[in-house]
Amino acid sequence: MLVDCGEATQHQLLRTRLSPLKLDTILITHVHGDHCYGLPGLLASCQLNGRTDPLTLVGPAAVWAYLQAVIEHTEMRIDYPLRFVEVSEALALEQGGFRITAARLSHRTECWAYRLQEARVTAKLDTARLQTEGVMPSPLYGLLQRGETLVLEDGRQLEGADYCIPSYPARSVVVGGDNDRPELLAEACRGAQLLVHEATYTEEVLQQVGPEPQHSSAERVARFAQQAGVPALLLTHFSPRYLLHPRRERDLSVEELRIEAQRHYTGTLFLARDFETYTIRRDGQVERVTD
Amino acid sequence: MLVDCGEATQHQLLRTRLSPLKLDTILITHVHGDHCYGLPGLLASCQLNGRTDPLTLVGPAAVWAYLQAVIEHTEMRIDYPLRFVEVSEALALEQGGFRITAARLSHRTECWAYRLQEARVTAKLDTARLQTEGVMPSPLYGLLQRGETLVLEDGRQLEGADYCIPSYPARSVVVGGDNDRPELLAEACRGAQLLVHEATYTEEVLQQVGPEPQHSSAERVARFAQQAGVPALLLTHFSPRYLLHPRRERDLSVEELRIEAQRHYTGTLFLARDFETYTIRRDGQVERVTD
Repeated sequence: MLVDCGEATQHQLLRTRLSPLKLDTILITHVHGDHCYGLPGLLASCQLNGRTDPLTLVGPAAVWAYLQAVIEHTEMRIDYPLRFVEVSEALALEQGGFRITAARLSHRTECWAYRLQEARVTAKLDTARLQTEGVMPSPLYGLLQRGETLVLEDGRQLEGADYCIPSYPARSVVVGGDNDRPELLAEACRGAQLLVHEATYTEEVLQQVGPEPQHSSAERVARFAQQAGVPALLLTHFSPRYLLHPRRERDLSVEELRIEAQRHYTGTLFLARDFETYTIRRDGQVERVTD
Repeated sequence: MLVDCGEATQHQLLRTRLSPLKLDTILITHVHGDHCYGLPGLLASCQLNGRTDPLTLVGPAAVWAYLQAVIEHTEMRIDYPLRFVEVSEALALEQGGFRITAARLSHRTECWAYRLQEARVTAKLDTARLQTEGVMPSPLYGLLQRGETLVLEDGRQLEGADYCIPSYPARSVVVGGDNDRPELLAEACRGAQLLVHEATYTEEVLQQVGPEPQHSSAERVARFAQQAGVPALLLTHFSPRYLLHPRRERDLSVEELRIEAQRHYTGTLFLARDFETYTIRRDGQVERVTD
């Protein structure tokens, strides 16, 4: 699954172990170039590399119109099944092991956040309940765990589903597009372990730039995440004025975004960098995977 | 000046000392994605980085239509002057110190080659002729070299332009797009020091693939360059089946393209790689600049 596809996404993928041929779903938050200019090339390379598996594209109608225009004007050919699903508040898609829903954001153009929730959580058998009800451990336990229906010698009928409980709570991540009102994500973030959100500026720079670009500051996102009780926050989409390796004293550093967010957020905070991998553990803890 | 702009061109430029803000002219050979999908992003980044200088885009009408569609669908904004010049056999443009002309190629879609000829060759004074005509060295020589008109004491009038000769022949390079008929470049290559041309396949693989993609083999380009007397040939646009670093015995190597071309061409042969720089010296020799 891929959320947004800026220019050179396919080139960056070449530097990972991921393959566009294994890609199942592409979710696009909005039609601005830095979020979708890599889409035509990625889809064209899938064709060139012999993809035959279907691919699902989710996004605003404008993204599909853009893609169709590029396909037509550049004589691009796609023979594998490409399905488009227009995003809406009613989106409820199960793809690649996730339940995908969406929340509308506030930006200069129609823009969305996607919530991905794990669809298939391993079930474990509620053995305590079974034993309370007088059903002692036996090979029948295995049948119940597979969801089958059992009729006991005393005539009682047991539905496996009634005795299966998730072995851990289903994990969720919310990935937002560009947005100047993080509070729009209050509902989507309920129960989510991780919010991925833009923090284009510090609050001071946002005030200088003015509200027109409709982006968030690190402070605004942090305040929202704190209030909503989101346990982990991954900030991204930093203005290029914030340097990863500042050299001169007047250079702004991405660390200023981190410091500002930390002032308003006590959860687990990350600043995104290219090629990083994160994991949400079964206990809900979010960790950066270093490799 | 940039010829063609595939996806991630702006990202590759970040790894060089070149800046899109100093870019004067973009020449696009044809509208296929691998030759123009980097154009919208490059132009958008120029805007983001505050470009105000005009930029000239040359190419088939389809390229302009594609760009306009992307601009419209993705709400892209360009405030600096962007001029489009439609390529044709009549193209005669002077940009960035070059005289630019074009030759039509043979591909699945309208496709062109561009010839760039040095426009401003340093002039030197034909002192031998002046002395034969009895005009002896004096400060007047400097005036003639600047192209001024002189009246001598004996009443003779001398036009500087008549006594100025180029200090070396103007240098030219021909850069082709995708093309299955190199011989279409016979006229454009006359007097050119260097031809940059695609060699997508070896002749054997081209025979297997069939003529439909309308690409050239190394052999066909080499035979043409030999017959046309082009002193240097730079091959590019290799099918990804030819590996730079083959690992297994059955892997095809780009060296096979070199070997095939060398069998039919005795001039200076190069196979293009990312980030290479070439120079055409004033004596016409083409060299790869290693740095």
